[in-house]
Amino acid sequence: MNGAEALVDTLENNGIEVCFSNPGTSEMHVVAAINKSRKLRPVLALFEGVVTGAADGYGRMAEKPACTLLHLGPGLANGLANLHNAKRGSSPVVNIVGDHPGYHLHHDSPLTTDIASIARSVSHAVYTVSSVRSVGSDTARIIQEARKCNGQVATLILPANIAWEEHAVSSARIVNSPTSIVDENVIVSVASALKKRIRTALLLRGSALSGEGLRIAGRIAAYTGATLLSDTFSPRIQRGVGLPIVQRLPYRSEDTRRFLEDFDQLVLVGGLPPVAFFAYPGKPSWPTPDNCRIVTLAHPHEDTIDALKRLDEASGIPKGVSGILAQFQSASLIRSDELTAENVMRVVGDLLPERAIICDESVSSGFPYYTLTANSRMHDYLQLTGGAIGSMLSASIGAAIACNDRKVICLIGDGSAMYTVQALWTMARERLDVIVLIYANQKYAILQEEMKRMGAENTTNGWPSMLDINDPSLSWVNLANSMGVQAERVKTTEQLRRTFQSALINTGPFVIEAMIC
Amino acid sequence: MNGAEALVDTLENNGIEVCFSNPGTSEMHVVAAINKSRKLRPVLALFEGVVTGAADGYGRMAEKPACTLLHLGPGLANGLANLHNAKRGSSPVVNIVGDHPGYHLHHDSPLTTDIASIARSVSHAVYTVSSVRSVGSDTARIIQEARKCNGQVATLILPANIAWEEHAVSSARIVNSPTSIVDENVIVSVASALKKRIRTALLLRGSALSGEGLRIAGRIAAYTGATLLSDTFSPRIQRGVGLPIVQRLPYRSEDTRRFLEDFDQLVLVGGLPPVAFFAYPGKPSWPTPDNCRIVTLAHPHEDTIDALKRLDEASGIPKGVSGILAQFQSASLIRSDELTAENVMRVVGDLLPERAIICDESVSSGFPYYTLTANSRMHDYLQLTGGAIGSMLSASIGAAIACNDRKVICLIGDGSAMYTVQALWTMARERLDVIVLIYANQKYAILQEEMKRMGAENTTNGWPSMLDINDPSLSWVNLANSMGVQAERVKTTEQLRRTFQSALINTGPFVIEAMIC
Repeated sequence: MNGAEALVDTLENNGIEVCFSNPGTSEMHVVAAINKSRKLRPVLALFEGVVTGAADGYGRMAEKPACTLLHLGPGLANGLANLHNAKRGSSPVVNIVGDHPGYHLHHDSPLTTDIASIARSVSHAVYTVSSVRSVGSDTARIIQEARKCNGQVATLILPANIAWEEHAVSSARIVNSPTSIVDENVIVSVASALKKRIRTALLLRGSALSGEGLRIAGRIAAYTGATLLSDTFSPRIQRGVGLPIVQRLPYRSEDTRRFLEDFDQLVLVGGLPPVAFFAYPGKPSWPTPDNCRIVTLAHPHEDTIDALKRLDEASGIPKGVSGILAQFQSASLIRSDELTAENVMRVVGDLLPERAIICDESVSSGFPYYTLTANSRMHDYLQLTGGAIGSMLSASIGAAIACNDRKVICLIGDGSAMYTVQALWTMARERLDVIVLIYANQKYAILQEEMKRMGAENTTNGWPSMLDINDPSLSWVNLANSMGVQAERVKTTEQLRRTFQSALINTGPFVIEAMIC
Repeated sequence: MNGAEALVDTLENNGIEVCFSNPGTSEMHVVAAINKSRKLRPVLALFEGVVTGAADGYGRMAEKPACTLLHLGPGLANGLANLHNAKRGSSPVVNIVGDHPGYHLHHDSPLTTDIASIARSVSHAVYTVSSVRSVGSDTARIIQEARKCNGQVATLILPANIAWEEHAVSSARIVNSPTSIVDENVIVSVASALKKRIRTALLLRGSALSGEGLRIAGRIAAYTGATLLSDTFSPRIQRGVGLPIVQRLPYRSEDTRRFLEDFDQLVLVGGLPPVAFFAYPGKPSWPTPDNCRIVTLAHPHEDTIDALKRLDEASGIPKGVSGILAQFQSASLIRSDELTAENVMRVVGDLLPERAIICDESVSSGFPYYTLTANSRMHDYLQLTGGAIGSMLSASIGAAIACNDRKVICLIGDGSAMYTVQALWTMARERLDVIVLIYANQKYAILQEEMKRMGAENTTNGWPSMLDINDPSLSWVNLANSMGVQAERVKTTEQLRRTFQSALINTGPFVIEAMIC
């Protein structure tokens, strides 16, 4: 077997099932090996940002990595922003990048770049395969890196000659990465901190925000009187009927500071202390008030579920306690037929089917109405973790592939959706069950807000043209149709309700262009 | 004045006229300063790859830099591939990237990245502004870097607090960068080499491929019997009626080797020796035959026109000599109405208006028919320099802005055009006079060829799906219309001729979707 075949074989042996890709000349042997094996599902995207965004979404929902296949430095560069999001969200990703052979690199041909340097900025680990003899073990090692610490971006650079050389050996199944267990002293100390009669919040992240982790966190909160919190942007959170209610930290650091003033201690469960998203003149970067003590139960790389279980035991919580669970409540009290961003969320919240996956990059339109889906049917909510716009349209692809029996609903601003608009094509190609709801406000609304907040507003000459995207206005119906996706434009809440309802009944990708006012 | 105003003032003082941008929160003060001044033209793009591609195209045609304005590491990341192309093509670009303030960076907020490391991979120079006192001089310095060595990518990282702090000082006009002059010994030695009765080729690059440089190179070739060559992909070449004929090196290294066997010496004029674009099993990376001597007249960073002038003098070429100049010759001998890639180029070559600018990223479709435009009306021909696909649609924007009285014709494959498809929107917004001719073959045709050439072809399971983009098929008419650009689909050569002719008469952007067979 050649190096490419050993790579593919090792990926398959280790449970990698999907390869998101936009390959080039130097990856042709890998493409051939995937085509020969037919076990690893190849998913083509027309732009690399879609490849890496899809791998991010897949990793979040499948809880195991997919692999990518990118073409040299420029292919990696195009996928970099969504790898940044994946890294910030602790998504497991096996990121494979082809390179020229070593003997070719020193000629500095046009596509030569320093791939490792570019990759390092967004990867937890970077390896370059140095020999056809080690391609199997290097691949196994990079998969292990991707699985480590609750999810990492691990980049494997594969020189083309190693892909085509013969006598490679693939690697057998690897042992799962060891997890870091929280020290018993920490458990005891946090348990005793929770017993104090002071106002406590548990800030949850990672596996504490879904399934067993969330269930136990709910028990602990109910029993100790603590409040459950999540970051402003969480990679994944399970919400809705039957699940503990988790409050989200505000976006603005001054609001976060005010919010946290209600607490005497903040217990970190798998995450880090809150920090301001941006710096603004005269506003705090570090929002936690000095008199709110920060206690860490589990660091991001540690086994959070194990820590929560042991904390549950150490706190002596009786069996029946289950936490305050959300009950179904229609969000549909709509006061007018005007298609406001609020009404959009009310319709979504009301009709949301059981086990739906929301991928939210609605930025200014969806953010304020997050609570309107708190009492909807049980669902997963994915958000933009690293702030690199152009994530969720692509992440929807990965989520839909990881969970092919669940409905994916992408809520996204028109500005955001344009960054990786090519994602629509892959949705059509793979017949993915995704409803894309575009908030068409024809401006970078978030930037108009941010400009004011920055104190940079300058009305002498009106709003800068750089914040408006209404000339020309985009037609999302045409855009979707051009890539084989059906679409409809809606202008009233009632139209949205009807269109959304029918899209929920049907399968396959569908774009709703909501002309919000 | 605040730091942002000092930046903008310095840019304007130094002849920067255009800012291609996709800004974010941390750049709001710069946006406000641009809006206030109204001298620097802001050109918004919906994706950063369009920003940097446009700056590349502008730099090639304006022969001076535009600036970009990018949002933090992810904004830079999205623009990285086209900065790579700009760097490989020696385009002057002042690349401005916002960053968090230093005091915010250490909190590692979600958008924090190591911008300098990412920038270094595609920049000749990277500076971070460290104080509001130095913002003017740092900006002047980075403009000088961009102008140096016949065109460089120079990145300026601007922390947000420096943009908003007061008491900044802008910088006065800078002295142009000193140019490196070729040593007299080299001129004498090349002149004597040209006198030898051996088969000689001059390999031209940069300023030797247009205007005065090309004219002198033509005289030298005519007088000494040398052949004029260009690289396989040149950043810019002037061609057509009244200009010396320059042959292009083949793409495949074995063809290049065969081609160069006809020469005993190869004189480099502003460029480097040819190297293979990719490595292939058993094929040479270094195509120049051992018995072909390589002589350098001017290195890429040296003043090529000056060197050519002095070589002209040293060779004692009489006044009247003007070289073998191309004469008009219709390329329109079309044998059938079938819309082949060849017939497309024949139509383009025949109708090409005087002073048109061709931006070519047609990859497999246009490449073989390059000579069909050799005897068209005088034009500039821009190509993909760094091999990072997704360049020329965006470069067309920059070319059209740099030369607003000239027609820009972008020849591009459907696969290529999808990478930075958002460029169409900016064309509509800025009412740019660009005809985009899409070769719609619905596959990555180049990769099917490359796969064979790699010896990775594997027909057991048919062509890998990763090389086909026909499911779903793209509608370029819908895609263009969705972004405000008029478009038409053509299926025969006659239809193409009529549509192309009418697009030439009208102004403003127009997409022709050529369904080639």
